Amino acid sequence: MKIEGLGKLLRIYIGEQDKLHNQSLYEAIVYKAREMGMAGATVIRAIEGFGAASRIIHTAKLLRLSEDLPILIEIVDTEERIRKAVSEFEKMIDASGAGVLMTMEQVDILRYHQ
Amino acid sequence: MKIEGLGKLLRIYIGEQDKLHNQSLYEAIVYKAREMGMAGATVIRAIEGFGAASRIIHTAKLLRLSEDLPILIEIVDTEERIRKAVSEFEKMIDASGAGVLMTMEQVDILRYHQ
Amino acid sequence: MKIEGLGKLLRIYIGEQDKLHNQSLYEAIVYKAREMGMAGATVIRAIEGFGAASRIIHTAKLLRLSEDLPILIEIVDTEERIRKAVSEFEKMIDASGAGVLMTMEQVDILRYHQ
Repeated sequence: MKIEGLGKLLRIYIGEQDKLHNQSLYEAIVYKAREMGMAGATVIRAIEGFGAASRIIHTAKLLRLSEDLPILIEIVDTEERIRKAVSEFEKMIDASGAGVLMTMEQVDILRYHQ
Repeated sequence: MKIEGLGKLLRIYIGEQDKLHNQSLYEAIVYKAREMGMAGATVIRAIEGFGAASRIIHTAKLLRLSEDLPILIEIVDTEERIRKAVSEFEKMIDASGAGVLMTMEQVDILRYHQ
Repeated sequence: MKIEGLGKLLRIYIGEQDKLHNQSLYEAIVYKAREMGMAGATVIRAIEGFGAASRIIHTAKLLRLSEDLPILIEIVDTEERIRKAVSEFEKMIDASGAGVLMTMEQVDILRYHQ
């Protein structure tokens, strides 16, 4: 697969403890992305944050035991594939009941090949 | 709170050891964001970097003891609220004397509700 | 150095184990950025992902021993300097044989000074 030119970067901010049917919601999203043949996905664990999921500030210092930290998923692909994935992710997020922030940005894909 | 449509992503690159009145500057910024009712903030710790704060490359390997690593704060909200927050953050950064890189990008907010 | 106004954010997704002549490819890229006088670079280690480098999902949980996790390098600078750097990075990536995703976005640089 080789993709170059204009594309979209999808970013999903989620809680590490958010669940979908006993599975981590962020892992369910990454597996769905892979199943749909998306170009790639990257998962970053933040050390602190507040947002859609909660008004409490989660921090790596205070919550090391529970580890309910913010997670950021990044997916880059063509706009068409991103939009298709978003409609799948929306269903999963609705089913999970989690508070989620999801943003989309335009990017130039300078290099992507396997 | 529910926000959808065009918004801005603010990103602040800062040093983990930067201080404002004996508090971490990055924590002071996150607390200010929350106090101002911003939609959310996420703090990511990098493992290496150089930039506004220093020409030295900080790495997790070399500086594990001091832990002066780069920190990235991400805040998504409406442009109006982002601009208001930036003017507050500017004052805090000026008072801290820290070297900081601050960028703003346009994003489509696809989903945000609590 | 002081840069303000429109700029570019370059993001490079790479594997932590990718090598260029026995050196980490991501470290070689950060050193090259510094040698070229770029404004800054930040390196973030992800906890999971799949993409250009592999169809296997790398996770911090499964691969703690090998630590072949996704790495994200972020560089912000003027468009001219970013384009010059990209052509250097392309040569390094070609020489390494690594699968890499590289994207570029427009950003407003609100603050950058040392």
